[in-house]
Amino acid sequence: MITKEDCFNQLRDVIDAVLSTVDENGNPQSRIIDIMHIEDEKIYFLTGRGKDVYREIINHPKVSYLSLKDNKSIRISGEAYQLDDQKYWIDLMFDENKFLNNVYPGESRYILEPFCIENAEMEFFDLTQKPIFRKTFTLGNAKITPKGFVIGDNCVACGICKGVCPQNVPVEGEKYCIPQENCLHCGRCFEKCPMQNIERL
Amino acid sequence: MITKEDCFNQLRDVIDAVLSTVDENGNPQSRIIDIMHIEDEKIYFLTGRGKDVYREIINHPKVSYLSLKDNKSIRISGEAYQLDDQKYWIDLMFDENKFLNNVYPGESRYILEPFCIENAEMEFFDLTQKPIFRKTFTLGNAKITPKGFVIGDNCVACGICKGVCPQNVPVEGEKYCIPQENCLHCGRCFEKCPMQNIERL
Repeated sequence: MITKEDCFNQLRDVIDAVLSTVDENGNPQSRIIDIMHIEDEKIYFLTGRGKDVYREIINHPKVSYLSLKDNKSIRISGEAYQLDDQKYWIDLMFDENKFLNNVYPGESRYILEPFCIENAEMEFFDLTQKPIFRKTFTLGNAKITPKGFVIGDNCVACGICKGVCPQNVPVEGEKYCIPQENCLHCGRCFEKCPMQNIERL
Repeated sequence: MITKEDCFNQLRDVIDAVLSTVDENGNPQSRIIDIMHIEDEKIYFLTGRGKDVYREIINHPKVSYLSLKDNKSIRISGEAYQLDDQKYWIDLMFDENKFLNNVYPGESRYILEPFCIENAEMEFFDLTQKPIFRKTFTLGNAKITPKGFVIGDNCVACGICKGVCPQNVPVEGEKYCIPQENCLHCGRCFEKCPMQNIERL
Protein backbone atom coordinates (compact mmCIF):
# COMPACT_ATOMS: atom_id res chain seq x y z
CA MET A 1 0.00 0.00 0.00
CA ILE A 2 1.39 3.35 -1.03
CA THR A 3 2.26 5.66 1.86
CA LYS A 4 3.12 9.33 2.30
CA GLU A 5 6.70 8.29 2.83
CA ASP A 6 6.75 6.49 -0.56
CA CYS A 7 5.52 9.68 -2.19
CA PHE A 8 8.19 11.79 -0.49
CA ASN A 9 10.81 9.29 -1.63
CA GLN A 10 9.67 9.62 -5.24
CA LEU A 11 9.65 13.41 -4.98
CA ARG A 12 13.22 13.47 -3.65
CA ASP A 13 14.32 10.84 -6.12
CA VAL A 14 12.92 12.57 -9.20
CA ILE A 15 13.62 16.12 -7.97
CA ASP A 16 12.62 17.62 -11.35
CA ALA A 17 9.00 18.53 -10.93
CA VAL A 18 6.73 20.94 -12.73
CA LEU A 19 5.54 23.89 -10.68
CA SER A 20 2.38 25.55 -11.95
CA THR A 21 1.34 29.03 -10.93
CA VAL A 22 -1.12 31.69 -12.04
CA ASP A 23 0.23 34.89 -13.56
CA GLU A 24 -0.99 38.49 -13.25
CA ASN A 25 -3.45 37.91 -16.11
CA GLY A 26 -4.96 34.88 -14.38
CA ASN A 27 -3.34 32.46 -16.83
CA PRO A 28 -1.45 29.27 -16.02
CA GLN A 29 2.34 29.22 -16.11
CA SER A 30 4.63 26.26 -15.59
CA ARG A 31 8.32 25.42 -15.43
CA ILE A 32 10.66 22.87 -13.92
CA ILE A 33 11.55 23.73 -10.34
CA ASP A 34 13.40 21.04 -8.47
CA ILE A 35 12.12 19.94 -5.08
CA MET A 36 15.20 20.59 -2.98
CA HIS A 37 14.29 19.40 0.46
CA ILE A 38 11.52 17.63 2.36
CA GLU A 39 11.26 17.87 6.14
CA ASP A 40 8.32 17.17 8.48
CA GLU A 41 6.07 16.61 5.45
CA LYS A 42 6.91 20.06 4.10
CA ILE A 43 8.12 20.62 0.54
CA TYR A 44 10.96 23.12 -0.01
CA PHE A 45 12.14 24.77 -3.19
CA LEU A 46 13.84 27.96 -4.31
CA THR A 47 13.75 30.42 -7.17
CA GLY A 48 15.40 33.66 -8.28
CA ARG A 49 14.01 37.04 -7.28
CA GLY A 50 14.14 38.14 -10.93
CA LYS A 51 11.98 35.34 -12.25
CA ASP A 52 8.32 35.65 -13.14
CA VAL A 53 7.54 32.65 -10.96
CA TYR A 54 8.81 34.54 -7.90
CA ARG A 55 6.35 37.38 -8.46
CA GLU A 56 3.57 34.98 -9.36
CA ILE A 57 3.85 33.07 -6.07
CA ILE A 58 4.05 36.29 -4.03
CA ASN A 59 0.91 37.60 -5.75
CA HIS A 60 -0.97 34.30 -5.87
CA PRO A 61 0.40 31.68 -3.44
CA LYS A 62 -1.71 28.74 -4.64
CA VAL A 63 0.48 26.39 -6.65
CA SER A 64 0.35 22.91 -8.13
CA TYR A 65 3.43 20.69 -8.19
CA LEU A 66 3.64 17.59 -10.36
CA SER A 67 6.25 14.86 -10.38
CA LEU A 68 6.26 11.86 -12.71
CA LYS A 69 8.21 8.60 -12.55
CA ASP A 70 7.48 5.35 -14.41
CA ASN A 71 3.90 6.44 -15.18
CA LYS A 72 3.25 7.20 -11.51
CA SER A 73 2.49 10.82 -10.78
CA ILE A 74 2.40 12.72 -7.53
CA ARG A 75 0.58 16.03 -7.40
CA ILE A 76 0.80 18.52 -4.58
CA SER A 77 -1.78 21.31 -4.49
CA GLY A 78 -1.38 23.95 -1.84
CA GLU A 79 -0.05 27.33 -0.84
CA ALA A 80 3.61 28.25 -1.06
CA TYR A 81 5.10 30.87 1.21
CA GLN A 82 8.47 32.57 1.27
CA LEU A 83 10.69 31.60 4.20
CA ASP A 84 12.44 33.97 6.60
CA ASP A 85 16.08 33.26 7.28
CA GLN A 86 16.98 33.14 3.60
CA LYS A 87 20.65 32.29 4.19
CA TYR A 88 19.90 29.29 6.43
CA TRP A 89 17.54 27.66 3.94
CA ILE A 90 19.57 28.44 0.83
CA ASP A 91 22.74 27.03 2.42
CA LEU A 92 20.86 23.94 3.61
CA MET A 93 19.44 23.28 0.12
CA PHE A 94 22.79 23.88 -1.62
CA ASP A 95 24.41 21.49 0.83
CA GLU A 96 21.82 18.82 0.07
CA ASN A 97 21.87 19.43 -3.72
CA LYS A 98 25.50 20.03 -4.72
CA PHE A 99 24.69 20.41 -8.42
CA LEU A 100 23.15 23.78 -7.61
CA ASN A 101 26.66 25.18 -7.29
CA ASN A 102 27.16 24.64 -11.01
CA VAL A 103 24.28 26.94 -11.83
CA TYR A 104 24.66 29.44 -8.98
CA PRO A 105 28.32 29.39 -7.89
CA GLY A 106 29.66 31.32 -4.89
CA GLU A 107 27.66 34.20 -3.53
CA SER A 108 25.31 34.24 -6.51
CA ARG A 109 23.13 31.69 -4.65
CA TYR A 110 21.67 34.52 -2.61
CA ILE A 111 19.72 35.84 -5.56
CA LEU A 112 17.48 32.87 -4.75
CA GLU A 113 14.65 32.86 -2.23
CA PRO A 114 13.45 29.78 -0.33
CA PHE A 115 9.81 28.70 -0.35
CA CYS A 116 7.84 26.09 1.53
CA ILE A 117 4.56 24.25 0.93
CA GLU A 118 3.11 23.13 4.24
CA ASN A 119 -0.66 22.68 3.90
CA ALA A 120 -1.50 20.78 0.77
CA GLU A 121 -3.34 17.93 -0.85
CA MET A 122 -1.03 15.26 -2.24
CA GLU A 123 -2.40 12.82 -4.79
CA PHE A 124 -0.65 9.69 -5.96
CA PHE A 125 -1.86 8.39 -9.34
CA ASP A 126 -0.70 5.14 -10.92
CA LEU A 127 -1.65 4.44 -14.52
CA THR A 128 0.28 1.14 -14.61
CA GLN A 129 -2.16 -0.70 -12.35
CA LYS A 130 -5.35 -2.13 -13.77
CA PRO A 131 -7.68 -0.66 -12.76
CA ILE A 132 -5.77 2.57 -12.28
CA PHE A 133 -5.04 3.53 -8.69
CA ARG A 134 -5.14 6.89 -6.94
CA LYS A 135 -4.82 7.90 -3.32
CA THR A 136 -4.99 11.27 -1.64
CA PHE A 137 -2.97 12.36 1.37
CA THR A 138 -3.23 15.46 3.53
CA LEU A 139 -0.15 17.54 4.28
CA GLY A 140 -0.43 19.87 7.27
CA ASN A 141 -3.99 20.99 7.86
CA ALA A 142 -5.12 21.30 4.25
CA LYS A 143 -8.75 20.60 3.50
CA ILE A 144 -9.29 17.82 0.99
CA THR A 145 -12.08 18.28 -1.54
CA PRO A 146 -13.54 14.93 -2.62
CA LYS A 147 -13.64 14.51 -6.41
CA GLY A 148 -15.02 11.98 -8.82
CA PHE A 149 -18.38 10.24 -9.11
CA VAL A 150 -20.68 8.46 -6.64
CA ILE A 151 -23.75 6.30 -7.19
CA GLY A 152 -26.90 7.64 -5.51
CA ASP A 153 -29.71 5.97 -3.59
CA ASN A 154 -31.87 5.23 -6.64
CA CYS A 155 -29.56 2.53 -8.00
CA VAL A 156 -31.55 -0.30 -9.60
CA ALA A 157 -28.46 -2.51 -9.89
CA CYS A 158 -28.76 -2.76 -13.67
CA GLY A 159 -24.97 -2.98 -13.96
CA ILE A 160 -24.71 -0.58 -16.89
CA CYS A 161 -22.20 1.61 -15.02
CA LYS A 162 -19.86 -1.36 -14.64
CA GLY A 163 -20.34 -2.37 -18.27
CA VAL A 164 -19.51 1.04 -19.69
CA CYS A 165 -16.63 1.83 -17.32
CA PRO A 166 -13.33 1.62 -19.27
CA GLN A 167 -11.82 -0.16 -16.27
CA ASN A 168 -14.92 -2.08 -15.04
CA VAL A 169 -14.54 -0.36 -11.71
CA PRO A 170 -18.06 -0.23 -10.17
CA VAL A 171 -18.66 -3.04 -7.69
CA GLU A 172 -21.80 -5.15 -7.94
CA GLY A 173 -24.28 -5.20 -5.08
CA GLU A 174 -27.85 -4.44 -4.10
CA LYS A 175 -26.72 -0.95 -4.90
CA TYR A 176 -23.57 -0.58 -6.99
CA CYS A 177 -20.67 1.45 -5.67
CA ILE A 178 -17.58 3.10 -7.20
CA PRO A 179 -14.30 2.47 -5.38
CA GLN A 180 -12.92 6.00 -5.49
CA GLU A 181 -9.30 4.88 -5.58
CA ASN A 182 -9.82 3.18 -8.96
CA CYS A 183 -11.91 5.80 -10.76
CA LEU A 184 -10.52 7.52 -13.86
CA HIS A 185 -13.03 10.37 -13.46
CA CYS A 186 -13.82 9.98 -17.16
CA GLY A 187 -17.56 10.45 -16.58
CA ARG A 188 -18.82 7.61 -18.77
CA CYS A 189 -20.98 6.00 -16.03
CA PHE A 190 -22.39 9.44 -15.24
CA GLU A 191 -23.48 9.86 -18.87
CA LYS A 192 -24.80 6.32 -19.34
CA CYS A 193 -26.70 5.62 -16.08
CA PRO A 194 -30.34 5.11 -17.18
CA MET A 195 -31.56 6.40 -13.80
CA GLN A 196 -29.37 9.52 -13.94
CA ASN A 197 -28.41 8.41 -10.50
CA ILE A 198 -24.68 9.10 -10.59
CA GLU A 199 -23.53 12.29 -8.99
CA ARG A 200 -20.45 14.27 -9.79
CA LEU A 201 -18.69 15.46 -6.63
CA MET B 1 21.17 24.69 -33.35
CA ILE B 2 17.89 23.57 -31.87
CA THR B 3 14.92 23.74 -34.23
CA LYS B 4 11.15 23.55 -33.97
CA GLU B 5 11.37 20.06 -35.42
CA ASP B 6 13.75 18.97 -32.63
CA CYS B 7 11.23 20.24 -30.10
CA PHE B 8 8.37 18.36 -31.74
CA ASN B 9 10.49 15.22 -31.75
CA GLN B 10 11.12 15.53 -28.03
CA LEU B 11 7.42 16.13 -27.39
CA ARG B 12 6.42 13.02 -29.33
CA ASP B 13 9.23 11.01 -27.81
CA VAL B 14 8.44 11.88 -24.20
CA ILE B 15 4.65 11.97 -24.67
CA ASP B 16 4.06 12.38 -20.91
CA ALA B 17 3.80 16.08 -20.38
CA VAL B 18 2.27 18.19 -17.66
CA LEU B 19 -0.75 20.24 -18.69
CA SER B 20 -1.50 23.21 -16.46
CA THR B 21 -4.85 24.94 -16.40
CA VAL B 22 -6.72 27.41 -14.23
CA ASP B 23 -9.77 26.21 -12.29
CA GLU B 24 -13.06 27.97 -11.50
CA ASN B 25 -11.45 29.58 -8.43
CA GLY B 26 -8.60 31.00 -10.49
CA ASN B 27 -6.10 28.54 -9.04
CA PRO B 28 -3.55 26.46 -10.96
CA GLN B 29 -4.20 22.79 -11.62
CA SER B 30 -1.89 20.30 -13.28
CA ARG B 31 -1.81 16.67 -14.34
CA ILE B 32 -0.10 14.42 -16.85
CA ILE B 33 -1.81 14.51 -20.23
CA ASP B 34 0.07 12.79 -23.01
CA ILE B 35 0.70 14.65 -26.23
CA MET B 36 -0.95 12.28 -28.69
CA HIS B 37 -0.31 13.80 -32.07
CA ILE B 38 1.55 16.65 -33.74
CA GLU B 39 0.64 17.83 -37.22
CA ASP B 40 1.38 21.09 -39.02
CA GLU B 41 2.96 22.46 -35.84
CA LYS B 42 -0.24 21.84 -33.92
CA ILE B 43 -0.32 19.92 -30.63
CA TYR B 44 -3.14 17.42 -30.08
CA PHE B 45 -4.33 15.77 -26.88
CA LEU B 46 -7.51 14.33 -25.42
CA THR B 47 -9.29 14.10 -22.11
CA GLY B 48 -12.50 12.71 -20.62
CA ARG B 49 -15.69 14.76 -20.49
CA GLY B 50 -16.06 13.92 -16.79
CA LYS B 51 -12.69 15.28 -15.76
CA ASP B 52 -12.11 18.64 -14.11
CA VAL B 53 -9.50 19.47 -16.74
CA TYR B 54 -12.16 19.26 -19.45
CA ARG B 55 -14.32 21.89 -17.76
CA GLU B 56 -11.30 24.00 -16.93
CA ILE B 57 -10.18 24.23 -20.56
CA ILE B 58 -13.70 24.98 -21.79
CA ASN B 59 -14.04 27.79 -19.22
CA HIS B 60 -10.47 29.11 -19.52
CA PRO B 61 -8.71 27.98 -22.71
CA LYS B 62 -5.23 29.30 -21.85
CA VAL B 63 -3.00 26.39 -20.92
CA SER B 64 0.66 25.68 -20.31
CA TYR B 65 2.24 22.39 -21.37
CA LEU B 66 5.60 21.25 -20.09
CA SER B 67 7.73 18.33 -21.24
CA LEU B 68 11.07 17.36 -19.72
CA LYS B 69 13.80 15.06 -21.00
CA ASP B 70 17.43 14.87 -19.87
CA ASN B 71 17.22 18.28 -18.17
CA LYS B 72 15.89 19.88 -21.36
CA SER B 73 12.40 21.28 -21.05
CA ILE B 74 9.95 22.40 -23.67
CA ARG B 75 7.09 24.65 -22.66
CA ILE B 76 4.10 25.46 -24.80
CA SER B 77 1.88 28.34 -23.72
CA GLY B 78 -1.26 28.98 -25.71
CA GLU B 79 -4.95 28.40 -26.11
CA ALA B 80 -6.49 24.97 -26.43
CA TYR B 81 -9.72 24.45 -28.26
CA GLN B 82 -12.02 21.47 -28.59
CA LEU B 83 -12.09 19.89 -32.04
CA ASP B 84 -15.16 19.12 -34.08
CA ASP B 85 -15.33 15.66 -35.63
CA GLN B 86 -14.65 13.90 -32.34
CA LYS B 87 -14.65 10.42 -33.84
CA TYR B 88 -12.08 11.23 -36.51
CA TRP B 89 -9.56 12.68 -34.07
CA ILE B 90 -10.09 10.10 -31.32
CA ASP B 91 -9.64 7.24 -33.79
CA LEU B 92 -6.54 8.86 -35.27
CA MET B 93 -4.96 9.33 -31.84
CA PHE B 94 -5.83 5.79 -30.72
CA ASP B 95 -4.32 4.47 -33.92
CA GLU B 96 -1.11 6.38 -33.31
CA ASN B 97 -0.96 5.53 -29.58
CA LYS B 98 -2.02 1.89 -29.22
CA PHE B 99 -1.50 1.85 -25.43
CA LEU B 100 -4.60 4.01 -25.10
CA ASN B 101 -6.69 0.91 -25.78
CA ASN B 102 -5.53 -0.54 -22.46
CA VAL B 103 -7.03 2.37 -20.57
CA TYR B 104 -10.07 3.03 -22.78
CA PRO B 105 -10.95 -0.25 -24.55
CA GLY B 106 -13.63 -0.55 -27.22
CA GLU B 107 -16.30 2.10 -27.43
CA SER B 108 -15.30 3.70 -24.13
CA ARG B 109 -12.81 5.86 -26.07
CA TYR B 110 -15.66 8.14 -27.06
CA ILE B 111 -15.96 9.50 -23.54
CA LEU B 112 -12.84 11.43 -24.56
CA GLU B 113 -12.78 14.73 -26.40
CA PRO B 114 -9.98 15.89 -28.69
CA PHE B 115 -8.23 19.23 -28.21
CA CYS B 116 -5.71 21.21 -30.22
CA ILE B 117 -3.22 23.95 -29.44
CA GLU B 118 -2.52 25.96 -32.55
CA ASN B 119 -1.31 29.44 -31.61
CA ALA B 120 1.30 29.25 -28.91
CA GLU B 121 4.72 30.23 -27.67
CA MET B 122 7.13 27.30 -27.44
CA GLU B 123 10.23 27.68 -25.30
CA PHE B 124 13.14 25.28 -25.27
CA PHE B 125 15.28 25.47 -22.13
CA ASP B 126 18.50 23.52 -21.63
CA LEU B 127 20.06 23.49 -18.18
CA THR B 128 22.88 21.15 -19.25
CA GLN B 129 24.66 23.75 -21.35
CA LYS B 130 26.93 26.27 -19.69
CA PRO B 131 25.76 28.97 -19.83
CA ILE B 132 22.20 27.70 -19.93
CA PHE B 133 20.43 28.00 -23.25
CA ARG B 134 16.87 28.98 -24.11
CA LYS B 135 15.13 29.64 -27.39
CA THR B 136 11.59 30.69 -28.16
CA PHE B 137 9.56 29.61 -31.18
CA THR B 138 6.21 30.81 -32.44
CA LEU B 139 3.47 28.32 -33.28
CA GLY B 140 0.70 29.61 -35.52
CA ASN B 141 0.17 33.34 -35.12
CA ALA B 142 0.80 33.62 -31.38
CA LYS B 143 2.30 36.85 -30.11
CA ILE B 144 5.58 36.37 -28.27
CA THR B 145 6.16 38.53 -25.20
CA PRO B 146 9.88 39.18 -24.67
CA LYS B 147 11.05 38.35 -21.14
CA GLY B 148 14.22 38.76 -19.16
CA PHE B 149 16.60 41.67 -18.64
CA VAL B 150 18.26 44.20 -20.95
CA ILE B 151 21.02 46.72 -20.32
CA GLY B 152 20.00 50.32 -20.97
CA ASP B 153 21.78 53.25 -22.61
CA ASN B 154 23.50 54.48 -19.46
CA CYS B 155 25.93 51.57 -19.27
CA VAL B 156 29.35 52.69 -18.03
CA ALA B 157 30.94 49.34 -18.90
CA CYS B 158 31.98 48.71 -15.28
CA GLY B 159 31.52 44.96 -15.82
CA ILE B 160 29.74 44.38 -12.52
CA CYS B 161 26.79 42.71 -14.27
CA LYS B 162 29.12 40.13 -15.79
CA GLY B 163 30.91 39.59 -12.49
CA VAL B 164 27.75 38.96 -10.50
CA CYS B 165 25.97 36.86 -13.14
CA PRO B 166 25.94 33.20 -11.99
CA GLN B 167 26.76 32.19 -15.57
CA ASN B 168 28.94 35.20 -16.56
CA VAL B 169 26.58 35.86 -19.40
CA PRO B 170 26.80 39.62 -20.14
CA VAL B 171 29.13 40.38 -23.04
CA GLU B 172 31.82 43.03 -22.68
CA GLY B 173 31.77 46.07 -24.91
CA GLU B 174 31.55 49.84 -24.96
CA LYS B 175 28.12 49.06 -23.60
CA TYR B 176 27.56 45.59 -22.16
CA CYS B 177 24.80 43.42 -23.50
CA ILE B 178 22.92 40.33 -22.29
CA PRO B 179 22.54 37.52 -24.83
CA GLN B 180 18.91 36.67 -24.17
CA GLU B 181 19.33 33.00 -25.05
CA ASN B 182 21.73 32.46 -22.13
CA CYS B 183 19.97 34.43 -19.40
CA LEU B 184 18.65 32.60 -16.30
CA HIS B 185 16.31 35.53 -15.53
CA CYS B 186 17.56 35.35 -11.93
CA GLY B 187 17.72 39.14 -11.64
CA ARG B 188 21.12 39.44 -9.98
CA CYS B 189 22.53 41.92 -12.55
CA PHE B 190 19.34 43.95 -12.20
CA GLU B 191 19.86 44.22 -8.43
CA LYS B 192 23.62 44.89 -8.54
CA CYS B 193 24.01 47.35 -11.45
CA PRO B 194 25.41 50.52 -9.79
CA MET B 195 23.73 52.68 -12.46
CA GLN B 196 20.33 50.96 -12.03
CA ASN B 197 20.56 50.71 -15.76
CA ILE B 198 19.19 47.20 -16.25
CA GLU B 199 15.58 46.93 -17.25
CA ARG B 200 13.25 44.05 -16.62
CA LEU B 201 11.16 43.31 -19.70
